[in-house]
Amino acid sequence: MQSGEDRITAAILVIGDEILSGRTKDKNIGYIADHMTAIGIDLREVRVVADLEAEIVDAVNALRARYTYVFTTGGIGPTHDDITADSIAAAFKVGIDHHPDVKRLLIENFERRGVEVTEARLRMARIPFGAEIVENRLSIAPGFMLENVVVMAGIPSVMHVMLDAVTPRLRTGRKMLSTEIELFRPEGEIAELLGDTQAEFADVSMGSYPFNREARVYGTVLVLRSTDADRLAAAEASLKARLTAKGIPF
Amino acid sequence: MQSGEDRITAAILVIGDEILSGRTKDKNIGYIADHMTAIGIDLREVRVVADLEAEIVDAVNALRARYTYVFTTGGIGPTHDDITADSIAAAFKVGIDHHPDVKRLLIENFERRGVEVTEARLRMARIPFGAEIVENRLSIAPGFMLENVVVMAGIPSVMHVMLDAVTPRLRTGRKMLSTEIELFRPEGEIAELLGDTQAEFADVSMGSYPFNREARVYGTVLVLRSTDADRLAAAEASLKARLTAKGIPF
Repeated sequence: MQSGEDRITAAILVIGDEILSGRTKDKNIGYIADHMTAIGIDLREVRVVADLEAEIVDAVNALRARYTYVFTTGGIGPTHDDITADSIAAAFKVGIDHHPDVKRLLIENFERRGVEVTEARLRMARIPFGAEIVENRLSIAPGFMLENVVVMAGIPSVMHVMLDAVTPRLRTGRKMLSTEIELFRPEGEIAELLGDTQAEFADVSMGSYPFNREARVYGTVLVLRSTDADRLAAAEASLKARLTAKGIPF
Repeated sequence: MQSGEDRITAAILVIGDEILSGRTKDKNIGYIADHMTAIGIDLREVRVVADLEAEIVDAVNALRARYTYVFTTGGIGPTHDDITADSIAAAFKVGIDHHPDVKRLLIENFERRGVEVTEARLRMARIPFGAEIVENRLSIAPGFMLENVVVMAGIPSVMHVMLDAVTPRLRTGRKMLSTEIELFRPEGEIAELLGDTQAEFADVSMGSYPFNREARVYGTVLVLRSTDADRLAAAEASLKARLTAKGIPF
């Protein structure tokens, strides 16, 4: 793990009973994790909570105090169980109402498509006071960003366009670099030399991930991560020297 | 949401840098969620934290105080970054050492397979004092259960056999029943009548999940959940009557 002083950090808050019941399998955590790694933000924590205001408020307040950014997914549609925007307003103790620009956008869109303008549909224009809109070029109803909290849709395709829309507004850090070594040996066989290499390079994060692809194809992937290319290369060389010394091919 | 008085609740704690970096896409949350639903336990929260003892200790202590059970995945292998067992011991302020039965099992297995017995491999026998073993019929090195915390492997196939092994020891509740109605209408069109039905049946959980299967196939799935079959049927009938009144086929 990096010491974190100069790192930009983030947490994800997934909001939705459907994930907790197993009905819907989350695909957003992995996508956002990849995106954060790509833009040089350290994802440090993820939480999944139910569609309950108290749960959302507690989680948002805990996470926004701890990390540079919090990304939420889910609960911004038109139905009664879509309580994310109101919960974010409650967490920040700010008011919430129809955002005039968003309301206009939605009404224009509804009228163009011959869709009835209803109170329920206009719920999607409810944006906490002080928030900036995060555009949704796929289906109009936007997300928003209030201070360091980015609120996005739960539908993966919509979340993707919102994440793209907000990314230029984020502070990003030095990109995390990584290198992998795949070994067709069990984890137990490399544990000691990996531990020794980690002790030598405390500033390079080292992980070990066993795999079992088919009945008889198993092994371990070693992953080294650092924002410093020179330290990463030195750690990789040290690890490979130890593997060679033990007669383990890589 | 059920009022919860008589419900058995659970949280999942996923431990692993590889999930947060995006390198590994979690498959355990959805699997455990389905399993909890099947055996009548309400999954209420999920957290993902890094391989850092302080993070694990804080999350375990927060979750075990709040829910009937906590299920952890990941971090029980033989390498230096496998710190779950030690972190659980720290969370409970109990000691930890090689468990004699587990050590014997592991050594027998290593010797049978001609695998060298090393200090690193024997790390997998480290079990907090007071914990019960959770058998691993797939790859020997077990999980464990300490009070209400169940510690399992991160590799999905190994996690599955551990979850099967521990399930008979869990208190389970009344099974959550659910019914679904699929509509080829946008969510906005059913939001008001669904909200009205929810207001009528406060004890039946109702969710609305838009889908977009192909370019022009979209709609909404309404999910009703309750432990009471009669209330569930009544809510479903009420909802269908409202759909019929609005001329929406289902």
